[in-house]
Amino acid sequence: MSPQTSAKGYGISDTSKYTDFTVKDFPLKTSQPDDVTLSIEFCGVCGSDVHTVTGGWGPMSVPFCVPGHEIVGTVTEVGDNVKEFKVGQRVGVGAQVLSCLKCNRCKEDNEQYCPEQVDTYNAKFPDGVEAQGGYSTTIRTNERFVFSIPEAIKSEDAAPMLCAGLTVYSPLVRNGCGPGKTVGIVGIGGLGHFAIQFAKALGAHVIVFSHSPSKKEDSLSLGADEFVSTDEDGFADKYFDKIDYILSAADAEKIPLSDLLSTLKIDGKITSVGLPDKPWEGLQPQIMASNASCIGCSHIGSKKEANAMLKLAAEKGIKPIIDEILPMSQAGKAIEAVKNNKVRYRFVLKQDLK
Amino acid sequence: MSPQTSAKGYGISDTSKYTDFTVKDFPLKTSQPDDVTLSIEFCGVCGSDVHTVTGGWGPMSVPFCVPGHEIVGTVTEVGDNVKEFKVGQRVGVGAQVLSCLKCNRCKEDNEQYCPEQVDTYNAKFPDGVEAQGGYSTTIRTNERFVFSIPEAIKSEDAAPMLCAGLTVYSPLVRNGCGPGKTVGIVGIGGLGHFAIQFAKALGAHVIVFSHSPSKKEDSLSLGADEFVSTDEDGFADKYFDKIDYILSAADAEKIPLSDLLSTLKIDGKITSVGLPDKPWEGLQPQIMASNASCIGCSHIGSKKEANAMLKLAAEKGIKPIIDEILPMSQAGKAIEAVKNNKVRYRFVLKQDLK
Repeated sequence: MSPQTSAKGYGISDTSKYTDFTVKDFPLKTSQPDDVTLSIEFCGVCGSDVHTVTGGWGPMSVPFCVPGHEIVGTVTEVGDNVKEFKVGQRVGVGAQVLSCLKCNRCKEDNEQYCPEQVDTYNAKFPDGVEAQGGYSTTIRTNERFVFSIPEAIKSEDAAPMLCAGLTVYSPLVRNGCGPGKTVGIVGIGGLGHFAIQFAKALGAHVIVFSHSPSKKEDSLSLGADEFVSTDEDGFADKYFDKIDYILSAADAEKIPLSDLLSTLKIDGKITSVGLPDKPWEGLQPQIMASNASCIGCSHIGSKKEANAMLKLAAEKGIKPIIDEILPMSQAGKAIEAVKNNKVRYRFVLKQDLK
Repeated sequence: MSPQTSAKGYGISDTSKYTDFTVKDFPLKTSQPDDVTLSIEFCGVCGSDVHTVTGGWGPMSVPFCVPGHEIVGTVTEVGDNVKEFKVGQRVGVGAQVLSCLKCNRCKEDNEQYCPEQVDTYNAKFPDGVEAQGGYSTTIRTNERFVFSIPEAIKSEDAAPMLCAGLTVYSPLVRNGCGPGKTVGIVGIGGLGHFAIQFAKALGAHVIVFSHSPSKKEDSLSLGADEFVSTDEDGFADKYFDKIDYILSAADAEKIPLSDLLSTLKIDGKITSVGLPDKPWEGLQPQIMASNASCIGCSHIGSKKEANAMLKLAAEKGIKPIIDEILPMSQAGKAIEAVKNNKVRYRFVLKQDLK
């Protein structure tokens, strides 16, 4: 049987009409011997989808963009070289669909930092085909960027892990989150609510900093040891020199950076996986001078980390809190809700195209 | 003999007239059993002096401020508990004159990060006495903040090391500068010209990034292995993924942060010891996403590090390039020159008060 050559999906052509999804056919990437093709069942709705279709991160790179990079489905085709997967298997794809696979970064399980990395959507494959995301019927990519989903995890729960989960899991493990460490989590949304669970599962003492007291109950039920309201004056005083590492998923230009930095031990770090549309306000080196702290970023995670994350999630029963599972045709409603911070904590879209 | 109770120095009362130094008497801190008093011979002119007397870092905290925190002189008094120093010894004082000496940070050779740290000037001692700096006859402080000067180093050469030198030495050693590492140095001025020498002496491969091609010759003669002009388009391309650590002494709101970050290996870091008056422009977390890099700061160094630095400097013949040694009465001229980036690479003031 010759490989499938096209698919269809819900996409946006004009960032000023970012909820007006229309269905269009699009070509799939040229089938290669290392490729896996999957029929999509669920796709999570990520903040990145919103930043892209609204133009917040800049103009779109393709004329018609199908977002979605938290994808779970069933394998329908495998190339001749593919050993890891077979037709009918339940698998997922996250926020990356290709890298050069030859450079040192790729060889050392850092393929997410390969300079030739290709995003799942709003991007192009080396063959010139536009990469389209998971609000669609089908996705095809190299097996390196396909993850096996453990039996213990439901498909709709697995989907949001493949970007939101991995994006917090990777920096947590790379920055030493574990027993004996105190870790702060900032920004309790789709990413943050996974960060609490993974930081706890990895063995850290977990402190949530949030400006929304309404997140307290959820934070504690997800495993946080302490909840601190950042609306209270001097909230940071009590935590001076107490925290080893802070992961911020706050998608905002304004977070109480100086106060948060003051809670860090010497040489501590804040990683921001929230990527706001505008530069941070008021960031001067001197706000990190009192403890030699630093501020950094991180980009999703490697396949090795994705596999370890899924294993940990299966063992510990980690899963997202899904606000609602909507049919894919309601993508616009989900995008609007995420844009307005009205989601607790993830929308998942269910396939409704044939 | 009863302890000296006052001194005199060149100071500023009005940040709008930051070159109008006048001589005034001021009280010394109450003498304590752990204190050392020194008669000042030389004092370096640091960028911090300029930021303070011009109000760039905010209004001054004292009505009359004597700047200067690169101080070398001779011990004239020691308290009863002082074992490390004796009268007549040649010693120095840097940019810190006190800390609590009891907290974990103080106990673990991180006294520069003690929350009760007292700056050398524009600050107050716990007894309420204003701390005045080294453009003066005399300084008194706790022996923890006094450094012995090795014989091999001339007094005028030692002075600038006590802030400029230590401020770059500490982050270099704390961030792994050594054999097998590639270290970038940005901002070749008073701090940067020491950073080249210390990074090289510590065993790293040293690459200078500068927008001033005129600094090339000096950089190479100070020990840089490579000089890169940041004015050239694409200057960073060749250095992609090559650099372990970058120390920036650039005192500027605009440095080519994105390009510099792109040269870092995964998890690499830029420490900025340049502390500009305004926030950095355009700093978004995403500019650090491609390699999980981070940007941090650092504050001078500990006494332990100061002693190690002075030992290394003595062994390797490290010393500042002194533009001019001026009588202290010409402090205003020096301040103006530093403010206008007209100094290569340090002014040192020589005592002219009696």
